[in-house]
Amino acid sequence: MAEDDNSIAKPDSVELVIEAFQSGSLERIQAIADEVHPGDVEVAFERLDEVVRSEVLAQLPSELLAEWADYLPAADVGRRLITLPPVEQREVLESLSDDELVDLLQGMEEENRPQFIDLLPEGKRIVSEDLMRYPEATAGGRMTKAMAAISEGLTVKEALDELETLRDEAEVLSRIFVLDPDGRIQGIVRLRDLAFSTWDTPVTELMNEDLMAIGAMQDQEEAALMIARYDLMALPVVDVENRLLGVITHDDALEILEQENTEDMEKISGIGGDHGEQAYLQTSVLSHFKRRFGWVLALAFLALISGWVLHAYEEILTSYFILAIYLPMVVAAGGNTGGQSATMVIRAMALGEFDTREFGRVIWKEARVGILMGSLLAVCVALQIQFLLPAKLVPETISTLTVALVVGASLVAQVFTSTLVGAMLPVGAKMARLDPAVVASPAITTLVDVSGCIIYFSIAQFAFH
Amino acid sequence: MAEDDNSIAKPDSVELVIEAFQSGSLERIQAIADEVHPGDVEVAFERLDEVVRSEVLAQLPSELLAEWADYLPAADVGRRLITLPPVEQREVLESLSDDELVDLLQGMEEENRPQFIDLLPEGKRIVSEDLMRYPEATAGGRMTKAMAAISEGLTVKEALDELETLRDEAEVLSRIFVLDPDGRIQGIVRLRDLAFSTWDTPVTELMNEDLMAIGAMQDQEEAALMIARYDLMALPVVDVENRLLGVITHDDALEILEQENTEDMEKISGIGGDHGEQAYLQTSVLSHFKRRFGWVLALAFLALISGWVLHAYEEILTSYFILAIYLPMVVAAGGNTGGQSATMVIRAMALGEFDTREFGRVIWKEARVGILMGSLLAVCVALQIQFLLPAKLVPETISTLTVALVVGASLVAQVFTSTLVGAMLPVGAKMARLDPAVVASPAITTLVDVSGCIIYFSIAQFAFH
Repeated sequence: MAEDDNSIAKPDSVELVIEAFQSGSLERIQAIADEVHPGDVEVAFERLDEVVRSEVLAQLPSELLAEWADYLPAADVGRRLITLPPVEQREVLESLSDDELVDLLQGMEEENRPQFIDLLPEGKRIVSEDLMRYPEATAGGRMTKAMAAISEGLTVKEALDELETLRDEAEVLSRIFVLDPDGRIQGIVRLRDLAFSTWDTPVTELMNEDLMAIGAMQDQEEAALMIARYDLMALPVVDVENRLLGVITHDDALEILEQENTEDMEKISGIGGDHGEQAYLQTSVLSHFKRRFGWVLALAFLALISGWVLHAYEEILTSYFILAIYLPMVVAAGGNTGGQSATMVIRAMALGEFDTREFGRVIWKEARVGILMGSLLAVCVALQIQFLLPAKLVPETISTLTVALVVGASLVAQVFTSTLVGAMLPVGAKMARLDPAVVASPAITTLVDVSGCIIYFSIAQFAFH
Repeated sequence: MAEDDNSIAKPDSVELVIEAFQSGSLERIQAIADEVHPGDVEVAFERLDEVVRSEVLAQLPSELLAEWADYLPAADVGRRLITLPPVEQREVLESLSDDELVDLLQGMEEENRPQFIDLLPEGKRIVSEDLMRYPEATAGGRMTKAMAAISEGLTVKEALDELETLRDEAEVLSRIFVLDPDGRIQGIVRLRDLAFSTWDTPVTELMNEDLMAIGAMQDQEEAALMIARYDLMALPVVDVENRLLGVITHDDALEILEQENTEDMEKISGIGGDHGEQAYLQTSVLSHFKRRFGWVLALAFLALISGWVLHAYEEILTSYFILAIYLPMVVAAGGNTGGQSATMVIRAMALGEFDTREFGRVIWKEARVGILMGSLLAVCVALQIQFLLPAKLVPETISTLTVALVVGASLVAQVFTSTLVGAMLPVGAKMARLDPAVVASPAITTLVDVSGCIIYFSIAQFAFH
């Protein structure tokens, strides 16, 4: 992450928008509307507090709502929309891109939907009803119907004539799909190849048949990963018979991946639920609480196991209270290394860097990293004990060296097992067809807290008695 | 993250490539080369073990190296390149896109560079020497010179004639920059607008003057965030006088953000150093070790503070050993909630969801979330103690209720302070112009381990004596 990511070019635009919003003056809002990109409005909106946000929304005229609707949270657009007269509602709805329109419709209460769908022009109505058939997180739910497609068998001149009608509508016009009469994709042609060829050239001569496509019911993240892997501008979404249904564009891929990354990071840190569309400040305290408390509560009671283990070792701990000094270290070393290992493995899997076939190699690699870290850490700590621990703290029945050996051996065992647990839990989740990130890092920490206590006190008991 | 992200369309292509590579047969490798996308080769390459990888590289003929070079790690391409005769070296170098070429040159030892630069054709040599002036992580270091630009004052026909020479070269031809005689950007025109306008239309009429641009020395992540925010296909990179130097394309933005996300996740989990270009399996055990051991060692010695604190409370702990049962819970609740809070705040800052101005509101929000979580957790745990804790474990001098109140009060205080610490450390780092993610979550955990011990035993001492 950049250290100075405040200084994105045009930072002033966002500031300008925020100031206009906070002034509450509609005139000022309208004045800046011509100067800024809707993307700036989106960012400004994320930073407003709830009171200002609802005030701005409440007075936003329909033409501005229409201009910005693609960039504002669908729920906010929906809330404002309901208060507008039908003519203005139509204006806003028509301005929305396909996927935002569908988000909006899917997000509102079901009984409100028909009245809005009725307002749509014929074409958009069919499109939105069609798109609503796909769940939100699928390729179909994310695609737009505003793609560029032409029939096969045309000349360049005929193709350009057909495409001209899409000049303002198509989201991406640089990649054009050539369809057979049943709507199946035959190939793809670049607009530049049409623009720079003689008019009587058959499009087929310019066409590339090597085509990537994704099924409508596949996960939107797969679509984004394909766009990233193959450097695509638009990925066609097809039905089971390879008929073109829509496209997912490069900017959607960016949005999808940012969202999935956020969710992965949150899951790894033990934050549940969907991140949703709302920015941090837009999310209420109660929603934050709801997403976090589940894991906190579960882990607290899981930590009771460690407590009971600790309690069970009362005798050795109270007889050799010097053990208390190194207890947090042994325990924490497990959480730290297990968490590292889990993050490494979860992220590599998210990036598609390995597959179930390679799991053995991953575990083997982590095992070696674990033993290396455990051993070196043990040596450092044992030296610290041998040379820096005040002798008066060590009970007469044991030697400082014994303490050093007990702590060192515990660290090797604890770091090694924790690294393996950290790698194996996400790998196991993946093999069970679960999301690897579901095994949150704090859960791993809590688990290896238990093993750390057992390892440490067992070794001490063995050495001291 | 998708639960079935193995099933990316064309999974067979990656498998095919891996099998061909593992067979070691050059014929099979050449046979699959025509069928797969270089993006599949990239993924396959990430999954190979080191032995197979070097074997494949060693026998890769220059025409395949040239075809795939943009998708393979620059270091690998460099290693193979050195072993080729100059004619083939030239072939590979010429096939590289600008930014990969620069990566390759910057990655090799300085004394090797001139011989490779000499092999480049005049145009590419100037371009690469020019691009090498920018550090790797800047917009300039990431841009390509293969952009579409035309002089101002042309008609559509003249513009198309000028652009035709770029037909195969320009990475993005859908957005064309119009330059004044000094090379300053006057506006941007879409290829579609040229293609669908009459030939004598002045380009100026079709031009959009509302232009986003980024300075060459700005961080590459800022460029990626601008591309995401404004849904751009190509972001122009300019010098201080607004002269066009190159462009960063939408696919670069995806790559940059994925890389930055990986680094953020790793930092949050206490993994140091650069992630670099290498995939998980391509990274050696020693490199993994080096990136992780620093934090592990530092945190182990930091955990000694907790140990000394624990040791200092010997009297109360041994007199009331029942405290041991809830010690791990109180301590861990801090790490879990502090880690959640840090992740939330770090991620929101990375996404630009708030700025230094909003810090007060963030802290205030986290404070409320913290008090809410702490209180509810305290109630749950106090009830568990009151009704489920075996009475025989409670010493006669205190009541079960006192234990419940001590643990409950400690949980409230620990969760509240940890949530605040988790939010304030990244915020503080940001205000000190450091990367917020530098305050790794395990460091927060280790810190609040200390405060947890102090809080718990102080409250117990107060209540029991």
